[in-house]
Amino acid sequence: MDWDREARTGLAEAVYCAGKTPAQVDAIALAALNEGRRLLLTRLVPERRAALSPHVREALDYDAISATAILGDPAAARPGSVAVVTGGLADMPAATEATRTLAFHGATATLVADVGVAGLWRLMARLEEIRRADVVIAVAGMEGALFSVLAGLVAAPVVALPVSCGTGVSAGGRLALGAALGSCAPGLVAVNIDNGFGAAQAALRILALAHPPQ
Amino acid sequence: MDWDREARTGLAEAVYCAGKTPAQVDAIALAALNEGRRLLLTRLVPERRAALSPHVREALDYDAISATAILGDPAAARPGSVAVVTGGLADMPAATEATRTLAFHGATATLVADVGVAGLWRLMARLEEIRRADVVIAVAGMEGALFSVLAGLVAAPVVALPVSCGTGVSAGGRLALGAALGSCAPGLVAVNIDNGFGAAQAALRILALAHPPQ
Amino acid sequence: MDWDREARTGLAEAVYCAGKTPAQVDAIALAALNEGRRLLLTRLVPERRAALSPHVREALDYDAISATAILGDPAAARPGSVAVVTGGLADMPAATEATRTLAFHGATATLVADVGVAGLWRLMARLEEIRRADVVIAVAGMEGALFSVLAGLVAAPVVALPVSCGTGVSAGGRLALGAALGSCAPGLVAVNIDNGFGAAQAALRILALAHPPQ
Amino acid sequence: MDWDREARTGLAEAVYCAGKTPAQVDAIALAALNEGRRLLLTRLVPERRAALSPHVREALDYDAISATAILGDPAAARPGSVAVVTGGLADMPAATEATRTLAFHGATATLVADVGVAGLWRLMARLEEIRRADVVIAVAGMEGALFSVLAGLVAAPVVALPVSCGTGVSAGGRLALGAALGSCAPGLVAVNIDNGFGAAQAALRILALAHPPQ
Amino acid sequence: MDWDREARTGLAEAVYCAGKTPAQVDAIALAALNEGRRLLLTRLVPERRAALSPHVREALDYDAISATAILGDPAAARPGSVAVVTGGLADMPAATEATRTLAFHGATATLVADVGVAGLWRLMARLEEIRRADVVIAVAGMEGALFSVLAGLVAAPVVALPVSCGTGVSAGGRLALGAALGSCAPGLVAVNIDNGFGAAQAALRILALAHPPQ
Amino acid sequence: MDWDREARTGLAEAVYCAGKTPAQVDAIALAALNEGRRLLLTRLVPERRAALSPHVREALDYDAISATAILGDPAAARPGSVAVVTGGLADMPAATEATRTLAFHGATATLVADVGVAGLWRLMARLEEIRRADVVIAVAGMEGALFSVLAGLVAAPVVALPVSCGTGVSAGGRLALGAALGSCAPGLVAVNIDNGFGAAQAALRILALAHPPQ
Amino acid sequence: MDWDREARTGLAEAVYCAGKTPAQVDAIALAALNEGRRLLLTRLVPERRAALSPHVREALDYDAISATAILGDPAAARPGSVAVVTGGLADMPAATEATRTLAFHGATATLVADVGVAGLWRLMARLEEIRRADVVIAVAGMEGALFSVLAGLVAAPVVALPVSCGTGVSAGGRLALGAALGSCAPGLVAVNIDNGFGAAQAALRILALAHPPQ
Amino acid sequence: MDWDREARTGLAEAVYCAGKTPAQVDAIALAALNEGRRLLLTRLVPERRAALSPHVREALDYDAISATAILGDPAAARPGSVAVVTGGLADMPAATEATRTLAFHGATATLVADVGVAGLWRLMARLEEIRRADVVIAVAGMEGALFSVLAGLVAAPVVALPVSCGTGVSAGGRLALGAALGSCAPGLVAVNIDNGFGAAQAALRILALAHPPQ
Repeated sequence: MDWDREARTGLAEAVYCAGKTPAQVDAIALAALNEGRRLLLTRLVPERRAALSPHVREALDYDAISATAILGDPAAARPGSVAVVTGGLADMPAATEATRTLAFHGATATLVADVGVAGLWRLMARLEEIRRADVVIAVAGMEGALFSVLAGLVAAPVVALPVSCGTGVSAGGRLALGAALGSCAPGLVAVNIDNGFGAAQAALRILALAHPPQ
Repeated sequence: MDWDREARTGLAEAVYCAGKTPAQVDAIALAALNEGRRLLLTRLVPERRAALSPHVREALDYDAISATAILGDPAAARPGSVAVVTGGLADMPAATEATRTLAFHGATATLVADVGVAGLWRLMARLEEIRRADVVIAVAGMEGALFSVLAGLVAAPVVALPVSCGTGVSAGGRLALGAALGSCAPGLVAVNIDNGFGAAQAALRILALAHPPQ
Repeated sequence: MDWDREARTGLAEAVYCAGKTPAQVDAIALAALNEGRRLLLTRLVPERRAALSPHVREALDYDAISATAILGDPAAARPGSVAVVTGGLADMPAATEATRTLAFHGATATLVADVGVAGLWRLMARLEEIRRADVVIAVAGMEGALFSVLAGLVAAPVVALPVSCGTGVSAGGRLALGAALGSCAPGLVAVNIDNGFGAAQAALRILALAHPPQ
Repeated sequence: MDWDREARTGLAEAVYCAGKTPAQVDAIALAALNEGRRLLLTRLVPERRAALSPHVREALDYDAISATAILGDPAAARPGSVAVVTGGLADMPAATEATRTLAFHGATATLVADVGVAGLWRLMARLEEIRRADVVIAVAGMEGALFSVLAGLVAAPVVALPVSCGTGVSAGGRLALGAALGSCAPGLVAVNIDNGFGAAQAALRILALAHPPQ
Repeated sequence: MDWDREARTGLAEAVYCAGKTPAQVDAIALAALNEGRRLLLTRLVPERRAALSPHVREALDYDAISATAILGDPAAARPGSVAVVTGGLADMPAATEATRTLAFHGATATLVADVGVAGLWRLMARLEEIRRADVVIAVAGMEGALFSVLAGLVAAPVVALPVSCGTGVSAGGRLALGAALGSCAPGLVAVNIDNGFGAAQAALRILALAHPPQ
Repeated sequence: MDWDREARTGLAEAVYCAGKTPAQVDAIALAALNEGRRLLLTRLVPERRAALSPHVREALDYDAISATAILGDPAAARPGSVAVVTGGLADMPAATEATRTLAFHGATATLVADVGVAGLWRLMARLEEIRRADVVIAVAGMEGALFSVLAGLVAAPVVALPVSCGTGVSAGGRLALGAALGSCAPGLVAVNIDNGFGAAQAALRILALAHPPQ
Repeated sequence: MDWDREARTGLAEAVYCAGKTPAQVDAIALAALNEGRRLLLTRLVPERRAALSPHVREALDYDAISATAILGDPAAARPGSVAVVTGGLADMPAATEATRTLAFHGATATLVADVGVAGLWRLMARLEEIRRADVVIAVAGMEGALFSVLAGLVAAPVVALPVSCGTGVSAGGRLALGAALGSCAPGLVAVNIDNGFGAAQAALRILALAHPPQ
Repeated sequence: MDWDREARTGLAEAVYCAGKTPAQVDAIALAALNEGRRLLLTRLVPERRAALSPHVREALDYDAISATAILGDPAAARPGSVAVVTGGLADMPAATEATRTLAFHGATATLVADVGVAGLWRLMARLEEIRRADVVIAVAGMEGALFSVLAGLVAAPVVALPVSCGTGVSAGGRLALGAALGSCAPGLVAVNIDNGFGAAQAALRILALAHPPQ
């Protein structure tokens, strides 16, 4: 593990569990426990978590929807706020990966759920709340129309987080990703499909700039 | 030419000029002139039109934006109305191909231009006008977010007409087409990229059902 | 749930179950039961249905082929008719999703099955029946040649519903979708791959225009 | 040049001019002229032909539609017949490349033009003529529905020749090629997009089997 | 079932089982048994076969490698011969689907296995045997180089049958299919990926032309 | 034009000229001149600029490399700094579109050119300079390795701007875009290919948060 | 098996088990055992290995991470050295397939693990070690930035081995493969995704040239 | 320019002219002339070369087929030999870019032209010549079958150089590139499409290992 990363970039090390065996995840978690370090684990699906050693499993604060686990105490609260805006229920895994990553780093996130543009009034009803945030993470799958609509309505930085829900031409999230990148709304930026962790890290870089540590 | 098509399907024959030499277009147009038939020509780009024989060229009612030409008098006015809604200036070629095709068949079209969703209030300001139409043709390129927003706001049939304007990931219109097909809004249908002629034909099929000839 | 949608667009709310946990589907269904509302559930595969609470499971009118379930009584019968035309047995899941969605909204659908174009006389034998419908939903996978042939033979609006059956280059339904969009037949429109629900919604929008509520 | 190929495979050498400079084409043609050999040149677009030396240019029997040229006398007539069936005018370049290649090898080809499936009766009217051929070359662009319809109607070998005409999703010919390969009709085979030369060569291999040289 | 197809095209009806439930396959097989008809079933994977009724299962001549089953007696032997040439062991499922389809129609097939071009001498050693066939079906996955090499060495019609074995860029068979279509060898034709049935049907069409029924 | 956008989002209206005729661009520019408004024009390639009316052409501050033009005085200087880091000469058009957009809005940009990772020491030599910026815009084509390396070295928000330079598999910029989105470096965000305008707008949204107007 | 290959190319025969049944693998292994030949088996996943006959299973030196097995004694040690450099834990299966293939042929490999470019100093710390190798195999997934960085830092031949780890746009390894091919670093070559065997074979060809057998 | 590269990697700096204006190329060439440095320029198409200053133009040793230019004297001859093997005339631009790059660095290249596998005996006739080379660069477009055949016949390292000649499915070179990567022949490596420069650089890295400078 690259324990110095936090000092260098302000972002703590995290463990991406998708490409690792349970034994490898166990070893990393035990090392962190022994050294008293905090650790964020992502893409730890329930089956893989079940295969960890009991000692590690009990030490983890686990969330099944986002497949994330946190070892150790949360970071001290940071100033600044992030709105995480979703189109529907299928966006929750990625959205929660983002909110959990933010929480791990001490950042406050407001979840504005289920405001997809096929029912525009739902989004309009919560617009003021969204506008109060320093940074907006917009989460959407299918055709990703939420990204353009939202970026045209707020002045804050908007990070588009496309998700892989959808069928036929929208399956896999490429269409939603394209909607973020090809948007006619100015100043929208995107992260990879389902990359809630990355969207949160981008938000943290921006928050750190806006609210630099004293 | 398949002169019986109009009797069979209610839609007059049209000439798609993109895959034809000027001599071939000339021959078809002259035959129509000689037989006193009306004819719609599509994808007749200015350079190709300039290469037609003077006799044909003068007989054509030509529109350069849509690259369409009409030979003969317009059809008698049909009942029913179509709203053609566009996101921006780059949508005009396809949108005008649609309105000219509608006009050729005697149908009334209302153009609601420049109401892309990055500035949502522009669309909202004209919503009542759009809602008065029997059929809506929505025209958009880039990320095509207009399709979903519009289909969520009106009860009429909505035909999405994706256009090939855009750059990078949205170049060529595939992204806008995907946005129409992968939309979370219910009951949206799509035609091929830049196919204003086809969108109009679909609208004419629907109008003929709603307002059958007496 | 967006219970006002029916008033606004004439189309009742439906629940797309593919991206939802059984607990989420259960909660939505229970709310509908408690409020005495009708509900259509789509993409409820047998395994997911089996994981619902017994109370909800018993209340559902379930169809395994289309993976749809209906809660509550059918809507009052609407005027107008839809022909659902299929190429082969593999088209039945999407075709049935369409007919069930139509039935949920009170619309009458005629199924014309197994008339793929490799045996053209089968289609010809049933052409008159198809021509009597107000709207045609054409369902086909593989190379989707049925769409072009059918749209050249009928004057009604034709909604192409491509399905994901096929192998090699036609696997996944993109080829059939392309055949619908790239067709040389005039006025054909398409919905997403396997989207029987969307095809039915489009048909309902058209029927409502042709047979407006008194 | 591989002058022995004809002895070995029964197919005379041809020169694919697309990847060659005028000087290279000139040199090959002059060698053939000097040695008194027959030669077929394909993809010799008018601009490239204009850049050849006058001596070669005059010796060529040139056809601009198919961009082919023939040097020397036609081969002796072979027994057997090929029907070349096209959907529309845009199929003529590839179809003519096929008929010219057949003629170069002494084979008889019947052109059945403009019988696309959007107007099915046109195809039906000429079916008996098509059925008399030993081999059928079916030529179509756009969605390529002609391939499936035709292969279901005749018993002879059918070679699908997809062409690159089309727009949006059908641009470039991949959709028509897919329609040939993914067809539900039994025993259809395909060659590359616009490869009229290859389709003719396949037909010649089949004719040679059916009518072996005495 | 389309029992008249054999009279019309010379090719007996077959049942493609991949898109059908065991109950549907059972019903078709029972109807054939009751009517005393012969039937070829393809893509009947072992799990699906195991779910058939015992009566049907026992009546089937089943081959697990090709996932094909034959009901009834083989057709009378036809004149003519087909060579089925494969690159390696992974080509056997598709190759055997082809040879079983040929056998069902009474045609003789010679299997020339394991002669991939990375070891060219293996192919050379069996070339005379291949050249004796009326038609060659070449079967290859990965990069499909066998198609070009073989078509340059024999004069008979060569049907390329690409298969889906391979990894990385060659996974799924698209690369092998492309190699067949994009080949520099003259007169090669292709069928869809893994479509052993289609390759055999094409060969049967050609054989019927070369050896017409008396 | 949407003249209120600046009030709403802090970003002035811009004119994307790629999809507009010279007459349309002229009309927009004249309206701005008459109303005394500032205007940024992007994708105004030299040929299109040459076709503008002399009056407009003279009023424009034009830059050919970036194909941008500015009408009116620059905005008042904003606090905050942006580093625009490029891999090579081919990145200059997009990079300059970004720096010109920033300048139009009064923001200061430092160009750190020609520090591609194939010669890592060039990047290292200028790292301190880059680290002093509030926001980093990284510009790269080809394989886009610069994005990952840079995001691992700085703590500031990094906006990846992929460009379309490259050949073969990297032609068109998709590979560089993928490198930005699929990066193993935390918190990197991306805009569309060649979208220097969008990268600058994103940077401006971030700067406005970090240095809010007093 | 092609037992003469080793004599001809210097590379011993290997068995690619992915496309073979356990019975086929068993038969090949037994033949090798009986003839006293050495054999390398690749892509022998644990489930397939478990289905082998006990006699064969016990004779195999098996490694589960790389899914490789070796039958017989290692080859005599060759001169020359290879550095296998990886970005992270997910690269180990492909990297180990490479090192095991090298070991089977008697070549020495040094593993330099976990030096991905998001933490550049990890790579720098081990650069001298890498520079001592005759050939470098660089192993990376996701965006594959390691390839360009490494090829710019060493003078030895560098073989890029892209791996299929990654998510969203980098899933499947195509992005990493593209990064290797589209790299701005001179003289980098690539093998197929996850093809550790092929990378090792390429390294062996190079080593044999540099250190020819006496 | 990175003048130290040669010392570090043994490969002299080259100028890729495709993404540079004539003025930029001029400036670089003049600097080299003034400093007495040797320089290789690639992708300098004739039109761009014609736009250079006369002084630079005259100093260049230019080759139009490969679009390369050399400034200064060739490097001292290196030991070792490279065979550059091509399938046809269309491979010459890339093949010559490779041979010119090799010559610039003092390496000897033997061109074995026009030995495509559709006429296998042409390749066989020159096999001994090819086998004498230390390194083989195989150049092919279309379906790229040459790569597999060649790598199965020689023991030396083989670098596949796919070229963009071809039509339909093989247009652009992706198919040939895939053939190189997906090959069943062991130890083949590939460079980007048309990247003759890169293939030569890879060969130079290998030669330097086999024949290290004394």
